[in-house]
Amino acid sequence: MSVIADRINEMKEILKKAGVDFYIVPTADFHNSEYVNEYFKVREFLSGFTGSNGTLVISQEETGLWTDGRYFVQAAKELTGSGIVLYRMAEEGVPTIEEYLDSHVKNGQTIGFDGRVIDAAFGRKLEKMLNDRNVTFEYETDLADALWTDRPGMPASDIWVVPEAQCGKTVARKLAEVREAMSKEQASHMLLAKLDDIMWLYNIRANDVDCNPVALSYTFISEKDAVIFVQNKALTEEAKAHFEKYKVQVKDYTQIVQFLETCELKGKVMCAYSEINYLLYKLLEKRGELLDRENPTSILKAIKNPVELENIRKYYLLDSVVLTKFLFWMKKNAGKQPMDEYSVAMKLDRMRSEIEGFLDLSFPTISAFKENAAMMHYSATKEDKKDIDTDGFYLVDSGGQYVGGTTDVTRTIALGNVTDEMKKHFSKVASGMLRLADTKFLYGCTGKNVDIMAREPLWECYIDYKCGTGHGIGYILNVHEGPQNIRWRFNPGVKEAVLEEGMIVSDEPGVYIEGSHGIRTENILEIVKETKNGDGQFMGFRHLTYVPIDLDAIDTQYMEPSDVRKLNDYHAEVYRRLEPYFEGEEKEMLKAATRAV
Amino acid sequence: MSVIADRINEMKEILKKAGVDFYIVPTADFHNSEYVNEYFKVREFLSGFTGSNGTLVISQEETGLWTDGRYFVQAAKELTGSGIVLYRMAEEGVPTIEEYLDSHVKNGQTIGFDGRVIDAAFGRKLEKMLNDRNVTFEYETDLADALWTDRPGMPASDIWVVPEAQCGKTVARKLAEVREAMSKEQASHMLLAKLDDIMWLYNIRANDVDCNPVALSYTFISEKDAVIFVQNKALTEEAKAHFEKYKVQVKDYTQIVQFLETCELKGKVMCAYSEINYLLYKLLEKRGELLDRENPTSILKAIKNPVELENIRKYYLLDSVVLTKFLFWMKKNAGKQPMDEYSVAMKLDRMRSEIEGFLDLSFPTISAFKENAAMMHYSATKEDKKDIDTDGFYLVDSGGQYVGGTTDVTRTIALGNVTDEMKKHFSKVASGMLRLADTKFLYGCTGKNVDIMAREPLWECYIDYKCGTGHGIGYILNVHEGPQNIRWRFNPGVKEAVLEEGMIVSDEPGVYIEGSHGIRTENILEIVKETKNGDGQFMGFRHLTYVPIDLDAIDTQYMEPSDVRKLNDYHAEVYRRLEPYFEGEEKEMLKAATRAV
Repeated sequence: MSVIADRINEMKEILKKAGVDFYIVPTADFHNSEYVNEYFKVREFLSGFTGSNGTLVISQEETGLWTDGRYFVQAAKELTGSGIVLYRMAEEGVPTIEEYLDSHVKNGQTIGFDGRVIDAAFGRKLEKMLNDRNVTFEYETDLADALWTDRPGMPASDIWVVPEAQCGKTVARKLAEVREAMSKEQASHMLLAKLDDIMWLYNIRANDVDCNPVALSYTFISEKDAVIFVQNKALTEEAKAHFEKYKVQVKDYTQIVQFLETCELKGKVMCAYSEINYLLYKLLEKRGELLDRENPTSILKAIKNPVELENIRKYYLLDSVVLTKFLFWMKKNAGKQPMDEYSVAMKLDRMRSEIEGFLDLSFPTISAFKENAAMMHYSATKEDKKDIDTDGFYLVDSGGQYVGGTTDVTRTIALGNVTDEMKKHFSKVASGMLRLADTKFLYGCTGKNVDIMAREPLWECYIDYKCGTGHGIGYILNVHEGPQNIRWRFNPGVKEAVLEEGMIVSDEPGVYIEGSHGIRTENILEIVKETKNGDGQFMGFRHLTYVPIDLDAIDTQYMEPSDVRKLNDYHAEVYRRLEPYFEGEEKEMLKAATRAV
Repeated sequence: MSVIADRINEMKEILKKAGVDFYIVPTADFHNSEYVNEYFKVREFLSGFTGSNGTLVISQEETGLWTDGRYFVQAAKELTGSGIVLYRMAEEGVPTIEEYLDSHVKNGQTIGFDGRVIDAAFGRKLEKMLNDRNVTFEYETDLADALWTDRPGMPASDIWVVPEAQCGKTVARKLAEVREAMSKEQASHMLLAKLDDIMWLYNIRANDVDCNPVALSYTFISEKDAVIFVQNKALTEEAKAHFEKYKVQVKDYTQIVQFLETCELKGKVMCAYSEINYLLYKLLEKRGELLDRENPTSILKAIKNPVELENIRKYYLLDSVVLTKFLFWMKKNAGKQPMDEYSVAMKLDRMRSEIEGFLDLSFPTISAFKENAAMMHYSATKEDKKDIDTDGFYLVDSGGQYVGGTTDVTRTIALGNVTDEMKKHFSKVASGMLRLADTKFLYGCTGKNVDIMAREPLWECYIDYKCGTGHGIGYILNVHEGPQNIRWRFNPGVKEAVLEEGMIVSDEPGVYIEGSHGIRTENILEIVKETKNGDGQFMGFRHLTYVPIDLDAIDTQYMEPSDVRKLNDYHAEVYRRLEPYFEGEEKEMLKAATRAV
């Protein structure tokens, strides 16, 4: 680990020369993406900590790393010998990064960061907090770059175009909808930096971030013009022709800075401060009036159109077939032949890749046996994995990118015998998932209103799962998508998104007992309109996922009769939909797995 | 009705002379109270409309009355012949008062109102909306006063002191808590105008508003001093001695204006703009920096202390005994002897008044038979009421003010035969009430998270009740109290109150079928702490109300087995608690009414 200690010391020298007192290194690309490509893993390079979330603050006195609960154990291990102090986020008495800076930064000092990887909202917060301390912000240089001699190149995968028949809305129509939203806000221009929103808007995809089919890009839209900034080498002939067709000007990715410095601006520029980076924000701030607004693309993208929905339903069924077959194979072979968490994940990934229209995984498959399943973000590797035999729960959370949608599904199955308590937990989780899916609600409800439907069977037993119940999912895009979610905790100042017809959301309650077992049952639901009457527009959900819920782990004594009814109804529907894809012994297994209990 | 038309014409003359183009008359006292005394019913005097909510806007061109859905029928009737235009609030295409003024007020015009009956938040909204139109606000005169020659006097009932043993916290301690909250906000002073908050703070009560045991008053608190403004004639010797004991300076109610103009101010003044009137706001605005903050008394008052809770539990039981006896009498005698909605309400009020410690009703008893019960705020009068016989639902919503608490309870009972559909509705309402009461939730939840527990049995049938599920309740104070509530709809900008241990809330789902029947089952619940474990602090509810739910209207085929279990458990507890107060035939009835089904 002394290589890390050395690196930190070299950084301190660089900071000293640059006159920077505190240097902040988050885990982010230039677009505040949830997942980042290797090129952007500066924090990992400097600290040696490999988790997906963490921020480093380096000063001459101390180097601190902030990360969240998922990574406390891993970070402590990986930071050993580095001299870096671990700050466990959200633990009692642990300062946030803002609080830390507030109590450490002295009058006249300098804070440094690469302005492209810090979002404008955070930068503004720091400005405001320190504004009476005469602090300088050095944000125009990536000071770690010089140190990282074998840094991977910036990703620049080929941009491809989603066929018109597949996306249901032309670029022209999407641009018109965005311009309508701009005009409502009285904005003449809009800067959009969120990668999946840009992909959606222009009906393009690429592969610049693992599992997320996006291209590094920006777009600047005005009442008449639309300019997209992409890397020259990513620009295929197909993409070029597509942009020409829709009169979208193309400029190189790196030209965004010069463009924002010199382009003609009349009127207000709309952008989301949490999604554009601080460097671009400072450029625009100098040039005129800014409107901090949610991207209109966010809600437009979340409400799937009829073509997208039709494709989504189709690919969710094909995906369900494969997962069901995989789980049957697991049930049959576990304990009888050698297998481990990693090898079976590879098998599932292979099976999925054989579906016609498969493009990629939508995230790395989570494959976990026994106590490993209690870790919500566990990841088995070729080197570090557990053998799978019997007498425990096996959990698999996986999904694919297809030419007609993005899937996400979790099932937990009993291999061999499981205890009565495990069956109780499993039955409660199944009840919660099914209850939420069967909930009717009035138009206007948000995820805050309905979350308890999935959670109450567990809360009644004084058990909680420390995460949301559901998230939105992209269409051939990121597996996590907003603005809707199903969560119970309020975030002050965050506007809650109403659950709209055509949105899709996950429904994934779970039980996680440290050192023992983990259960998650996740279906994806489509939001639909139901009856409209004098009391209002009623809404409901429909399942998109059709994979049996393991009856070997169900004990109906822990369920309400209505939950059992919901389970049987769901299984009848699973059988009806999957049956055409099954034959022989597998069909018998399907029949048994979906029998009424 | 021509007397009203004449009055409006006279008002127009007055406005002309005063140079006022638009005159606004809300339904409010000087404290933005929910219910107001006769003295403050200027809007009713001018318009002839007797509902509890409505605002009049008078101009030379038009006089409009805005009221809500509860009163559309009644207002249309009462406004006939007056020439006043009815604006049905929240109906599609109907402008709000703000929108109306925005589209009608011209450059340089004058808007008038009595600045004491318009709250500062609304006044500021108008100022902001019209600030580019050079509009003058005339707010220092009550222009209708001259016209109302037989206006009742301002109420000035005797102030009495809640004994220390009854309130659980001394004035000194409450003032210390308020000052702590002020110091957190860095406020040196606080103006409090909310009547029930002032009563709570000083452990005093009076009778200036029907059913609301409050005295017209203001209080101004600084780091060292506390001044209360009450009417001289309301100041009893007892109250005087009490204020002296706690070093609270007493000034006359009318002196508040002069005081705020001249008192020594150093530092910021904290107040809630929605609860202080515009006149006082303008005075303070001239003098220095204001902080618009929730009154700290609001949350302090809502969390009942152990002494209050003990008394509340006791008086809810006594109140439950009386209501149960009344309902038994109804069941036995309806259809056999003459009775009507008004006469039986009088009987219940009389029975309640015989409870030792009874002070007043907490609101006028709602007593409604058959289709009248479908009107949520129906009120039978001596002159206008319905005879009660058999074959329908009878709904009674009532409560009392006692020396140890304020009660509120609703029951619906079947008299004679009711239809299968009515039983279905009744059983669903009972299920909803019982489910919410049995809900376990994590600390941090608000009413938004749990509302669906009461509502889902109805939403599943595509039925809604167009009101919240629950509200807070005062202690020997107003029957409606914040800040907590149980509702599902989000109000943008309103901070949701977390459900805290010691709060009490109503749980009152219902079904209202216009022209047919109405059902409401309302228990009051206490919020309690349950288990605390690694997943957090779990919370729950306890019933305070113990009155049978009419088994003649229950059909268990419409309930989940767990709902039936909850009903039986509740009834067993009702029997256990009420039994000591029942004898002979009534005891037999109690046994039958609480039997397991």
